[in-house]
Amino acid sequence: MNEENPWVTLTCHEVYDNNWINVTHRDVLNPAGGKGIYGMVHFKNAAIGIIPLDDDNNTWIVGQYRYTLEEYSWEIVEGGGTLGVSLLDSAMRELLEETGIVASDWQQIAELHTSNSVTDEFGVVYIARGLTFTDADPEETELLQVRKLPFWELHKMAMRGEITDAMSLVGILKVAEMLRNGTAI
Amino acid sequence: MNEENPWVTLTCHEVYDNNWINVTHRDVLNPAGGKGIYGMVHFKNAAIGIIPLDDDNNTWIVGQYRYTLEEYSWEIVEGGGTLGVSLLDSAMRELLEETGIVASDWQQIAELHTSNSVTDEFGVVYIARGLTFTDADPEETELLQVRKLPFWELHKMAMRGEITDAMSLVGILKVAEMLRNGTAI
Repeated sequence: MNEENPWVTLTCHEVYDNNWINVTHRDVLNPAGGKGIYGMVHFKNAAIGIIPLDDDNNTWIVGQYRYTLEEYSWEIVEGGGTLGVSLLDSAMRELLEETGIVASDWQQIAELHTSNSVTDEFGVVYIARGLTFTDADPEETELLQVRKLPFWELHKMAMRGEITDAMSLVGILKVAEMLRNGTAI
Repeated sequence: MNEENPWVTLTCHEVYDNNWINVTHRDVLNPAGGKGIYGMVHFKNAAIGIIPLDDDNNTWIVGQYRYTLEEYSWEIVEGGGTLGVSLLDSAMRELLEETGIVASDWQQIAELHTSNSVTDEFGVVYIARGLTFTDADPEETELLQVRKLPFWELHKMAMRGEITDAMSLVGILKVAEMLRNGTAI
């Protein structure tokens, strides 16, 4: 079976646009040739996740109330990449803004699509090492708690189901593998 | 710091609705009290992921062209839960439809939010054991390839970055931990 695009887009019109997302409604032919519709949510920025690690493998996580979920969520450091700025530069800025940490060594450990049935959101996760500490400067839309804890305690939280953010889970579980098999910086 | 909702929703109106998502535009006060807007994508169904395992820890994955990404993607068995049907019943139906597999033993291993900055999409991942095999019957919107492979080969694919679907990555990485520490069924 070939892996070419079996979908046909017949019509496409914008139904919503803001600084972060663009939503379009499409009339389509599905892979079987049947008529259907598709509501597609395009994300304008990449999602970026950062797991900073100090020499003792302590890490820092961020707690915030998530508007969409109507619940509090502890996550790895995350932010949206800025258009025209490299993902790594965006990651450095996000780590500094949320935790006050500057890191000298960076390793990209995962690329992911968060929710590919409806969105094209793309994310990357980094390990950050070589840490120095300054004053944090969160954006005003954010009311964040920052918590320092051993990475392996965070891993236990993830295994116990206390972390539900998908990008955080991917990052934490992958860092655990990489620390154990010696491929993490 | 308390963990109560620091956001205030001033106005909310629907900008798009289909069978799968509902998009609303909101005027809000952010946690710092500043005026802002929020485009919120509500998902009407839960995302469900299934990792079937036979007695030799072989598993089955699904390949399909993802309309949103404009690329081919290999993933764990996934589908949308049906409103009014339990997540587990939806998982059983999805596994049967996509692979023809009926499983007698089920273990929920993860709950996750796929993309919580914009959406409220919620997902669950299951291990399925006790497998028997029938003829697969995919929905006509789907043009699927099904591949049987050892779970540990799938785990290598995930570690090499060959799987990018976030729910698949969470499931695969968590199953690996659980097989190693003896907590998987």
